[in-house]
Amino acid sequence: ARAFRAAHGAEILADFARLLELPNVASDLPNIRANAEAIAERLRRRGATVEVLGLPDFPAAPPVVWGRLPADVPGGARRTLVLYVHYDGQPVDPARWTFPPWRPTLLTAALEAGGTERPFPAPGEPIDPEWRLYARSAGDDKAPLAALFAALDALAAAGVPRTADLVFFFEGEEEAGSPHLARYVDRYAERLAADAWLFLDGPAHQTGRPQLFFGVRGYAGFELTVYGALRQLHSGHYGNFAPNAVERLARLVASFEDGEGKVAIEGFYDSARPLGEAERRALAAIPAFEAALLDEVGLAAAEGGDERYSEAIARPALNARGIAGGGVGAAAVNAIPPEATASFDLRLVAGDDPDHMLDLVEAHVRRQGYHVVDREPTPEERRRHPLLARLVRRPGYPAVRTPIDSPASRLAVAAARAASPDGELVLLPTLGGSLPLYVFEERLGAPLVGVPIANHDDNQHAPDENLRLGNLWYGIDLLAAIVAAP
Amino acid sequence: ARAFRAAHGAEILADFARLLELPNVASDLPNIRANAEAIAERLRRRGATVEVLGLPDFPAAPPVVWGRLPADVPGGARRTLVLYVHYDGQPVDPARWTFPPWRPTLLTAALEAGGTERPFPAPGEPIDPEWRLYARSAGDDKAPLAALFAALDALAAAGVPRTADLVFFFEGEEEAGSPHLARYVDRYAERLAADAWLFLDGPAHQTGRPQLFFGVRGYAGFELTVYGALRQLHSGHYGNFAPNAVERLARLVASFEDGEGKVAIEGFYDSARPLGEAERRALAAIPAFEAALLDEVGLAAAEGGDERYSEAIARPALNARGIAGGGVGAAAVNAIPPEATASFDLRLVAGDDPDHMLDLVEAHVRRQGYHVVDREPTPEERRRHPLLARLVRRPGYPAVRTPIDSPASRLAVAAARAASPDGELVLLPTLGGSLPLYVFEERLGAPLVGVPIANHDDNQHAPDENLRLGNLWYGIDLLAAIVAAP
Repeated sequence: ARAFRAAHGAEILADFARLLELPNVASDLPNIRANAEAIAERLRRRGATVEVLGLPDFPAAPPVVWGRLPADVPGGARRTLVLYVHYDGQPVDPARWTFPPWRPTLLTAALEAGGTERPFPAPGEPIDPEWRLYARSAGDDKAPLAALFAALDALAAAGVPRTADLVFFFEGEEEAGSPHLARYVDRYAERLAADAWLFLDGPAHQTGRPQLFFGVRGYAGFELTVYGALRQLHSGHYGNFAPNAVERLARLVASFEDGEGKVAIEGFYDSARPLGEAERRALAAIPAFEAALLDEVGLAAAEGGDERYSEAIARPALNARGIAGGGVGAAAVNAIPPEATASFDLRLVAGDDPDHMLDLVEAHVRRQGYHVVDREPTPEERRRHPLLARLVRRPGYPAVRTPIDSPASRLAVAAARAASPDGELVLLPTLGGSLPLYVFEERLGAPLVGVPIANHDDNQHAPDENLRLGNLWYGIDLLAAIVAAP
Repeated sequence: ARAFRAAHGAEILADFARLLELPNVASDLPNIRANAEAIAERLRRRGATVEVLGLPDFPAAPPVVWGRLPADVPGGARRTLVLYVHYDGQPVDPARWTFPPWRPTLLTAALEAGGTERPFPAPGEPIDPEWRLYARSAGDDKAPLAALFAALDALAAAGVPRTADLVFFFEGEEEAGSPHLARYVDRYAERLAADAWLFLDGPAHQTGRPQLFFGVRGYAGFELTVYGALRQLHSGHYGNFAPNAVERLARLVASFEDGEGKVAIEGFYDSARPLGEAERRALAAIPAFEAALLDEVGLAAAEGGDERYSEAIARPALNARGIAGGGVGAAAVNAIPPEATASFDLRLVAGDDPDHMLDLVEAHVRRQGYHVVDREPTPEERRRHPLLARLVRRPGYPAVRTPIDSPASRLAVAAARAASPDGELVLLPTLGGSLPLYVFEERLGAPLVGVPIANHDDNQHAPDENLRLGNLWYGIDLLAAIVAAP
């Protein structure tokens, strides 16, 4: 694989860039379908049987790209592996991107490190692993697709047989919360039987070392709106008389936290399943990197003070995604804002039920004295309730954790150690991010291992998302080692 | 005056609409100048000597329209009165207006009461005093200009002499905080000598009764930004580790209030000069209207519970004008916002020094543990200070209060009582809103009386600003009575 990508790096990059040119927000169905077709075509070219699956009752559901590529080793397949990737990306605000999000741009280094734009390399031209490719989904989560195509080509070119039957399952709505994933798995379960699932998503460890993860956090979200008067009122004539929705919301948001990095919602930490002994050992083996991470992201201190990063993300989290009410800067006027909204996501750990966690949030809001509704309140409701909040829940899913010493785990660990430039690895009992792995655990019962490729500083979910090319090379080596493992 | 406006109502409205068609945001200098010229031309047509004044050292300062119209009563002027109006308006967000802000639109009633658009009346057509004219500055503060022009025409048509020498002082940057007003007054002080200043601004009382006010609140403002990491971070991978700027700001904003309608900033109420006996009597005479006001604006309760409205606005106020950080609704992403900003205005009462009040705010922010800067912090400062806030002060001015039984006060009370449809009046020791009257009190030493015309529900500073025509008629009668008072 190493020789192959040294010889064919320019072609690998050029084809990857073509895939990144396709806008891929889950709600943008025509473009999402174009992504699915482009990926299917690349799989077919490599000998796979491919179908772009849909759900008859849900015509607006982004399609799943499903495929099968049998082992070609004498004696037949040693195992069946499902490779999971999501080809959709987070929405973008192009005004905040240095380069257009769907015009892949090659830089000599990260922007923060002074990287400048350079042409894509000519065939055979040496490629610096520190170069970065900027585009939405360069890291999250099209990088594994580029790595997979190159790994299959490399094995074929070298005449190395595939020891595993491969099944591909590439979804198109992960960043929208995977609302149809369970239905896809139910409908197509017989095509998804396997010895293990490999989840190709998430970033490398913050130390820069490759990592594997054996669990992910679950997800839930909600949006909270509080109300003042029916209309904007002059702050001079009504200040001290009419309640201010921004001030009320600030108090409510502040009540969610204890001011020292812990969530103050009653019961929030109660359902989390504690880590086992093996997980605790894996955590303790991770080298300290918190000081470097704080420096890199420009922070004087972490939210939880000296607590280890990996301890922090093993707890459920409540995150304010944003807040808006009235105006600031040039948009500010001397008036009392009549409503204000804050948006939140929750990161759950094994044991937390999403609905139950949102029940706890709602109970907390009620305990602050609020009457809670789940839709726009009527003027009559606003006249009746001194404290009135609209709480809109967003669909979520639970976390999962897989035993760290299952056969699937050991296969992945061996391949990743072989692909790691220095043989070093980080084994993470749970990733901080969320993936809908519960669907597979619940319905298919297969062991799951997370196999990230992207650099940890890839700005995923943010403007200027990018992939470090050294991480793409690692991904190619890793996937080749997995597909050809003895 | 009553007969005149019954006969000429259509012409008065048509000319007012032409004045309202001119966009009038203080920072939009070409349009502000067009407003000044249009007003000057209307004064000259009525026999006044007029100059559009500027400040040579501040070419971007909106001009003051100054003029003089001598008394024409036998025996000479009984007094000299300065009439103050501001012809600029608050900025607009046209998307939130039902009708374009600078396309004056006549409705059969207020929008909330089911008013529908109707043509402007033909000459001689009867005009319903409940009709409303919708446009930016229809109430705040071009209404007194329309009333003044009509009042002068009415006196001339009836052959009633003017007993006062009139001086006009119309400023063009009141909604921007009047940054050049003191310089104007200093430079042109000799043209502004008078027995009294009448401030034609502000709304009628919430009971619908005409009101006079003998004081105004002062003003100050600030904008507060708090910081997290240097860039947006994935909320799964960094939640519980990287501090969230929105959550921090919410906690800081919440700390400004005690949760029961009072400001919790140390010393905030200490410098306010208590009301005197005469002021307390005037307050007590105001009929209770709070329940009706709450119902009208759609509130279940006032911020201060059962406290009287007029008591509440006699205290200094802190108002959050807006808050913004990250995104909500469709703009929300699963990331930790790196910064968040809130904008505030303060309404001050007699005795409060604006700079001192902002010092108290800054001391409070420091007491919450924040390092405070007054400009965008550097990445190094962000790495150094766990809690870092940018506090940008906005220029302000102090409040004033005039004796409620001065000769100027008595003149205004008599004229307003004569113009009031039922002879009822509200006398307010201080208005809730702010005007830069301190400039005149400090520099010219003249007594000041506030003489509002607009309806209290005119949506001033907000979308869909409007003027009830009955209030315009009241303004015409009132100004005629003042100008011709014995």
